[in-house]
Amino acid sequence: MKKNSNPIGVFDSGVGGLTVVKEIMRQIPNENLVYFGDTARVPYGNKSTTTIIKYTRQIIRFLDTHDVKAIVVACNTMSACSLEEVEKELKVPIIGVVKPGAKAAVERTKNHKIGVIATQSTINSRMYERFIQCIDPKISVYGKACPLFVPLVEEGLWDDSVTYEIASRYLDELQKKDIDALILGCTHYPLLKHTIAKVVGENINLVNPAYETSRELKHLLEEMDLINEEPLQDHSEQYRFYVSDVEEKFRSFAETIFADVNPYVAKNLITKQVDIERY
Amino acid sequence: MKKNSNPIGVFDSGVGGLTVVKEIMRQIPNENLVYFGDTARVPYGNKSTTTIIKYTRQIIRFLDTHDVKAIVVACNTMSACSLEEVEKELKVPIIGVVKPGAKAAVERTKNHKIGVIATQSTINSRMYERFIQCIDPKISVYGKACPLFVPLVEEGLWDDSVTYEIASRYLDELQKKDIDALILGCTHYPLLKHTIAKVVGENINLVNPAYETSRELKHLLEEMDLINEEPLQDHSEQYRFYVSDVEEKFRSFAETIFADVNPYVAKNLITKQVDIERY
Repeated sequence: MKKNSNPIGVFDSGVGGLTVVKEIMRQIPNENLVYFGDTARVPYGNKSTTTIIKYTRQIIRFLDTHDVKAIVVACNTMSACSLEEVEKELKVPIIGVVKPGAKAAVERTKNHKIGVIATQSTINSRMYERFIQCIDPKISVYGKACPLFVPLVEEGLWDDSVTYEIASRYLDELQKKDIDALILGCTHYPLLKHTIAKVVGENINLVNPAYETSRELKHLLEEMDLINEEPLQDHSEQYRFYVSDVEEKFRSFAETIFADVNPYVAKNLITKQVDIERY
Repeated sequence: MKKNSNPIGVFDSGVGGLTVVKEIMRQIPNENLVYFGDTARVPYGNKSTTTIIKYTRQIIRFLDTHDVKAIVVACNTMSACSLEEVEKELKVPIIGVVKPGAKAAVERTKNHKIGVIATQSTINSRMYERFIQCIDPKISVYGKACPLFVPLVEEGLWDDSVTYEIASRYLDELQKKDIDALILGCTHYPLLKHTIAKVVGENINLVNPAYETSRELKHLLEEMDLINEEPLQDHSEQYRFYVSDVEEKFRSFAETIFADVNPYVAKNLITKQVDIERY
């Protein structure tokens, strides 16, 4: 039996999942949290499903050692390719970013045409399509893999003529389908939202699954009576971050991400390297 | 004591090292060869040195099980970041692509100014600079990391306006240094050589370390009396390829690479997936 003060486990292929952590900090600020980012083996977007499942199992075994009360898969690729396989093996609730993202897009579309941009593996899984059509089979879903978006984000070209040109090429076929909602189906993509908005114009609603996922997590914890309502006495170990590669690069990214929402955490990050292959 | 018919072990972070294998096929066609490509954990170019060394050791332990007589590190990042650390632990000779690439560039420069383009980790290691200045301390070496080149190659944009624009930005500062030789310090980069040549013009000599490396391998085997001079009776298992992710994607890339140099191998590829984390 898990206690309400047990941590939530959140994981991602790298640093992108920190955008989900940021939303959790905002929406349910009394929760303890353990994060794992697979910074040594990132990116996952072109790996096979077999490998993605294997890596996901290792990460869940690691989070298990922290006695987590619930798990959030803050990575679209793993949510789409391995969540379904691993959830039946678990004793704690697990949620991914795909289902909440799909739900939010269904709420926003008016013409029943939704676009999804994501990694190649996420698009191949057709998981967004499946969840959307479970809710409303009349909705058409159009997917497009955008393999250059992650490297462009990591090069810092968030608002650049090259990124605009690449985005125009990627999004052209979705625009021709007359979509009115577009799911940013990779945690890196919201960082390109200004460029994407410039390309697609005002009439296409951009959906960021990170926000919806932490809302869904809150509901889930409430339903299961697992939410931590008592304010923490000691905040010093509330958020703990683990990575598979060295900590330095992760630290500087996390500091930037958390600077506005939680300056205390940003300045006092607890990060540690883990040999994930042992799990 | 190794026999001359023992295989050569060649490894890379993924598929790029096949360009080195192709040169070996051409230059020393009687050799048996075992290749390992770490397709599950690719790319290595932004990983820390600690992680690169750990992964290199695992790969070498795997190649050891095939009783290889010599090892070729067909990956610039590993040649630059982990070769020096692991070579002292080995009983067989090992060569990387950096030293031969450096040597070739020294032979080609006339004005003593060499540029190096490579991954971030290779540039950080300053290994090309070190080898070049060991040969001739008067040579100035200018390095530039080009993190978008690998994803651009993998997107197939080998000869594209976007690649031209990105290459112009990356190469601008090297051109201002008045270099007359440019090392393509990542196995993916030779695939962009037409675009790079268009950007830098005719006066800069492009150096591809893959060619030089297999020449150096041949010399090394001759010196150590380890070259396999007798034509093989049975070619069916001459080249064996192992990968850490599923084989399919690797197969199609390898088939394309080998189609002209060795159609028999291209059509009869022996590929197998390996759980590299166990080594």
